[in-house]
Amino acid sequence: MIQPRPFSLDIGSAPESAAQFDHRLERRLSSLRGQFSDAQAFAEKMAQGDPVAYEVLEILRPEEQGELLSGLSIVHPGKVGREYFMTKGHFHSVRATAEIYYCLRGQGCMVMENESGDWDVQQFLPGRVVYVAPGWAHRSVNTSPTESLMTFFVYPAHAGHDYATIERNGFRKLVVDDNGSPTIIDNPRWSAGARTHV
Amino acid sequence: MIQPRPFSLDIGSAPESAAQFDHRLERRLSSLRGQFSDAQAFAEKMAQGDPVAYEVLEILRPEEQGELLSGLSIVHPGKVGREYFMTKGHFHSVRATAEIYYCLRGQGCMVMENESGDWDVQQFLPGRVVYVAPGWAHRSVNTSPTESLMTFFVYPAHAGHDYATIERNGFRKLVVDDNGSPTIIDNPRWSAGARTHV
Repeated sequence: MIQPRPFSLDIGSAPESAAQFDHRLERRLSSLRGQFSDAQAFAEKMAQGDPVAYEVLEILRPEEQGELLSGLSIVHPGKVGREYFMTKGHFHSVRATAEIYYCLRGQGCMVMENESGDWDVQQFLPGRVVYVAPGWAHRSVNTSPTESLMTFFVYPAHAGHDYATIERNGFRKLVVDDNGSPTIIDNPRWSAGARTHV
Repeated sequence: MIQPRPFSLDIGSAPESAAQFDHRLERRLSSLRGQFSDAQAFAEKMAQGDPVAYEVLEILRPEEQGELLSGLSIVHPGKVGREYFMTKGHFHSVRATAEIYYCLRGQGCMVMENESGDWDVQQFLPGRVVYVAPGWAHRSVNTSPTESLMTFFVYPAHAGHDYATIERNGFRKLVVDDNGSPTIIDNPRWSAGARTHV
């Protein structure tokens, strides 16, 4: 095995820095089908094209304990009805793994919940660190009408991704535009019975 | 056990943000005794007082697999002879653990080496990520004459610190001021026989 070596890359200048990353993941709105509560607004948005909702620029490392995965998350501005563009959101497959985000640009929030019935929303502003505790599903939401939300993330490389649990019911809380202000509301689609394991 | 919760804190505004951290570690020059090659310059600097060489502001988390430790490293400007102020530098006790640094302010470099005889120096500039590969000892060096070097770091919480290996021989390479330019030179004190395990 080739021994891993140190390296560096610049993220202050993204998206120009994209070429420095190993991999670019592009998520179009269609990949979020069923996640927005306003189905008609979703259909109308899709009829106008299928915009890129977010991108993830990744530094690839072996998915082993002790290694760290990191990269840039870029959520573009936009709305589906009252709901802002957002990431799919996921639990880590290995639940007992944390994640740390550092906000570089834009504004938004991290919507989180765990399997014990708790939820939490932390705000993203440039210069702010958001700590996602072990066992908490997390989704980035861009609440700016014009600017992309750029965050740098780091998590243990053995964590894995569980998207299915969130795809089934969504998050317990939605972040919606209420006359220009981001507001947290209950997700009508969320089923408590299906998710709470206490 | 109380379940861990998400949280956020601002690091863009440090050192004003210090109060948001759980713990502040202060390292005075005296804690680096024996690490600078110019013993007379060190004695002279100590005779003028014992300045704070660097600080580490930590977010405390359980030192368990899956958790992440993070914080701010602040290396103050200064020199001992031709050598710049720097951190003690260390290996992780659990060698197979990586670390990621993000440079917020200042300029400097990360001096690294592993136990197979390789060394590496990466530059710190605002907006730059430095990846410390598993098995590599690392030391931050502030090459600015006036400004503090501020970096945000993240590493697996079970990594632990091994300072003793570095204290014994120092790093293989030194970063010194050569007429105003940071320059990498061999460390005369470094003993290859004592450190290379191939």
